[in-house]
Amino acid sequence: VFTVNWEAKQAEKDGYAHFMLKEIHEQPRAIKDTLSGRIAADGGSITLHEINIPEAQLPDINKIFITACGTAYHAGLVGKHIIESLARIPVEVDIASEFRYRNPLLDRHSLVIVVSQSGETADTLAALREARRKGARVLAVTNVVDSSVAREADDVLYTWAGPEIAVASTKAYTTQLVAMYLIGLYLAQGRGTIKPEELKGIITGLRELPDKVNAILKDSHGIEAFVRQYRDCADVFFIGRGLDYAVAMEGSLKLKEISYIHAEAYAAGELKHGTLALIVQDVLVIALNTQVTLFDKMLSNIKEVKARDATVLAVAMRGLEEVAKEADHVMYVPDTHQVLAPVLAVIPLQLLAYHMAVARGCDVDQPRNLAKSVTVE
Amino acid sequence: VFTVNWEAKQAEKDGYAHFMLKEIHEQPRAIKDTLSGRIAADGGSITLHEINIPEAQLPDINKIFITACGTAYHAGLVGKHIIESLARIPVEVDIASEFRYRNPLLDRHSLVIVVSQSGETADTLAALREARRKGARVLAVTNVVDSSVAREADDVLYTWAGPEIAVASTKAYTTQLVAMYLIGLYLAQGRGTIKPEELKGIITGLRELPDKVNAILKDSHGIEAFVRQYRDCADVFFIGRGLDYAVAMEGSLKLKEISYIHAEAYAAGELKHGTLALIVQDVLVIALNTQVTLFDKMLSNIKEVKARDATVLAVAMRGLEEVAKEADHVMYVPDTHQVLAPVLAVIPLQLLAYHMAVARGCDVDQPRNLAKSVTVE
Repeated sequence: VFTVNWEAKQAEKDGYAHFMLKEIHEQPRAIKDTLSGRIAADGGSITLHEINIPEAQLPDINKIFITACGTAYHAGLVGKHIIESLARIPVEVDIASEFRYRNPLLDRHSLVIVVSQSGETADTLAALREARRKGARVLAVTNVVDSSVAREADDVLYTWAGPEIAVASTKAYTTQLVAMYLIGLYLAQGRGTIKPEELKGIITGLRELPDKVNAILKDSHGIEAFVRQYRDCADVFFIGRGLDYAVAMEGSLKLKEISYIHAEAYAAGELKHGTLALIVQDVLVIALNTQVTLFDKMLSNIKEVKARDATVLAVAMRGLEEVAKEADHVMYVPDTHQVLAPVLAVIPLQLLAYHMAVARGCDVDQPRNLAKSVTVE
Repeated sequence: VFTVNWEAKQAEKDGYAHFMLKEIHEQPRAIKDTLSGRIAADGGSITLHEINIPEAQLPDINKIFITACGTAYHAGLVGKHIIESLARIPVEVDIASEFRYRNPLLDRHSLVIVVSQSGETADTLAALREARRKGARVLAVTNVVDSSVAREADDVLYTWAGPEIAVASTKAYTTQLVAMYLIGLYLAQGRGTIKPEELKGIITGLRELPDKVNAILKDSHGIEAFVRQYRDCADVFFIGRGLDYAVAMEGSLKLKEISYIHAEAYAAGELKHGTLALIVQDVLVIALNTQVTLFDKMLSNIKEVKARDATVLAVAMRGLEEVAKEADHVMYVPDTHQVLAPVLAVIPLQLLAYHMAVARGCDVDQPRNLAKSVTVE
C-alpha cells in the first residue's frame, strides 16, 4: 500500500480562519496525492496496485452499485456517469440508508463500491455487509486507513485527502471524485472500452487538475463580493444537467449545511414540472454550465428563470462565455475535459457556501445538529 | 383496446370549488376504471390484452428503464420498487430530460416504460424516440388515447383517469401507480417470480383501494384544521424511507407547485448528512409511516427531528399507532398491503397541498409559471 505521511501540522488551522477554508485550499495537494503512484510513468494507463480483482474477472462484472451517504453519495452520482460512459458497465447509485433495506438485485457478478470519508458511516458499513452477504465483491473508497469500511471490504482505494476536520466535506469530496475517475479508467482499460488516446487525454487532464484548482482559489475575490451582495437571500436553487446536476446537488448541500439557507438542487429540465412556481423575483438561481454538449439546453433554462426575474449566478467553464449574455453574474473555471469538470465546478460552490456562512455569522466548522462522521443510524 | 366513455360533465367542476379538488375526489372511480378489465374473473391473475410482448420474450427482458417528468417520474420511483421486488428485474428510473442526453446503456433486451399523463411531454417523447432508436421495446403509460407517446410506443397501457384539468396532477398520479402495480404483477406472473397466493393477495388489495381512498376523502376534516394552524409556515420537509420516500417526493412537489411553500423531500436516513442543520424550532416535518418493516427506523428519524423542536405531522398506516407517541399530529390511512400504501398515503398529502394553497390565496388550478402539459423542452 502506498502511503502519504500526514504531518501533524495538517491538524492545525495553519493560518486560515476555519478548518473548512484550510481544507478547501488543501485540495490541489490532496488531488495530487490521490493521483500519485496510480498513473503509469508514460501517462498512458492507470495502475491500481491495491485493487486485486483478477484481470480475467473484469469482463464478468455486469453491474456496479455505488452506495454512500451525503457528500460521498454525490461523488457516487458523478461516478455513475464516469463508469457508464467510459467502461460501459451499468451503475446504480443508492443512498446507503435506502440500499440496505431495499433488497437490491445483486449477486457475485456485481461490484459494490462504498464511499465514506471516515470509513465508519453506519449505514454505509451496513450496506457493505449486506452486499458481501449476497456474494458481491466490495470495493471501498475511504480516507481513513484501517477504518471499518476499509477492513471489511475486498479491496480499498484510499483517497489521500489527509484528515478532514470541518463537518462540511470539501477535500474528501474532490478526492472521491478523483477515485471515481481512477476506477472508471481502470475498468475501461481493463475491458478495452476506451481508446488509448482518449485514456491518455483524460489522464493528462487529471494531472492538470491541481494547478487548475489552484488558479480558481487564487482568483476567488469575486465570490466574496457576490456574497456581500446576496448574504440575506432566503431560498437558493442550484440547477444543472448531466454531470452539472450532480455537482449542483453537492453545491446545494454545502450551502444548506453551513449557512442554513434552504437550498435545493434540480435537474434543469425538471424546473418546468413544478419548481418553477417558486422562481420569482430575487430568488437566487445558481446555474452550472460546464458541459459543452448540454450548453444550449442550459442556456434555455437560464432564460426560463430570468423570464421570472430570478437572479442568476452561472458557474461556467471557460469557452462558454456566451452564458454571460443571460446570467447576472458568472464565475468561470478553467477549461478541462468535460468529464473532469465537476472537480473544478465545485470549488466556487464550496467557497460560496463558506463565505455565505461566515457573512451570516454561522459556525462554519461545526454547523448545528451535525456530526462529522455519522456512526449511528 | 378497452375504453371508458368520458362523459362531458367530467370536464366541469361538478360543484367543487376547483378542478383539483374535483379530481382528488374522482380518484376512487379513476382507480376502479384503471383496474377494470385487467384482472381475471377469479381474481388470481392480471390480463393486459393491450401489451403484446410475446410470453416467450418475457424472460429475455433483463433491464427496465422508467423515464418520465415531474409527478409521472415519482410514479416511476414507486414502479421501480414494485417491479424489482415482484418481478426481480433491475429497474432504473430517469428524469426524461436527463435520460435523453446521457447515452444510457440499453439494447433490445431492455424494456423502456415511459409515463406521461398528456402523452405529449416533450422530453418524455424524445426519450421514447431515443430508446426505440437503440432497439429497446417501449411501453407507454399515458392518460390520453392516441397521444404522441401512445402512437409511437410499441405497447400502451392507458390510465383511465379521465381528463385532468388542474395543473397539479392527482388522479393521473394514483392511476399511474395502479399501472405500475399492473405491470409489476404482469411481469411477475409471466416470469414466475410470484407465488399465486401473494399475487391473489395483492390483487385483492388493489380492488379494495377505491373504497379505502373514499374512506380517507370522507374523513379529511383534520387536514383543514391542521392547515388553519400551519398556513403561514415557511419551509416544509417531507421524509420517508423506501416507498414512503417516493411518496414524500410527490407530496413535496404538490405542496411546492400550488402553495409556493419551499418544500423538499428527503430520504429520512439522509437527514443527518446535512439537512438536519435546517431543522429548527417550528419547521414543519411531514413524516410518512406506512412501511411496517421500516417503522422503527422511521420512528428514530421522527425522534431526531423532534429533538430539534420541529413540528411533526405523521401520515401513518393503521396499525402503526405507536407513531402518535412521538409525532405532534397524525393522519391515518387504512391498512393495506405494504406495497400498495403509496396510493393511500398520497391522498392526505394532496389534500394538504390543496387546502394550504386555498388558505394562502393561491390560484390552485393554475399555479404561476406552470403549464399543464410541458410540450416544449
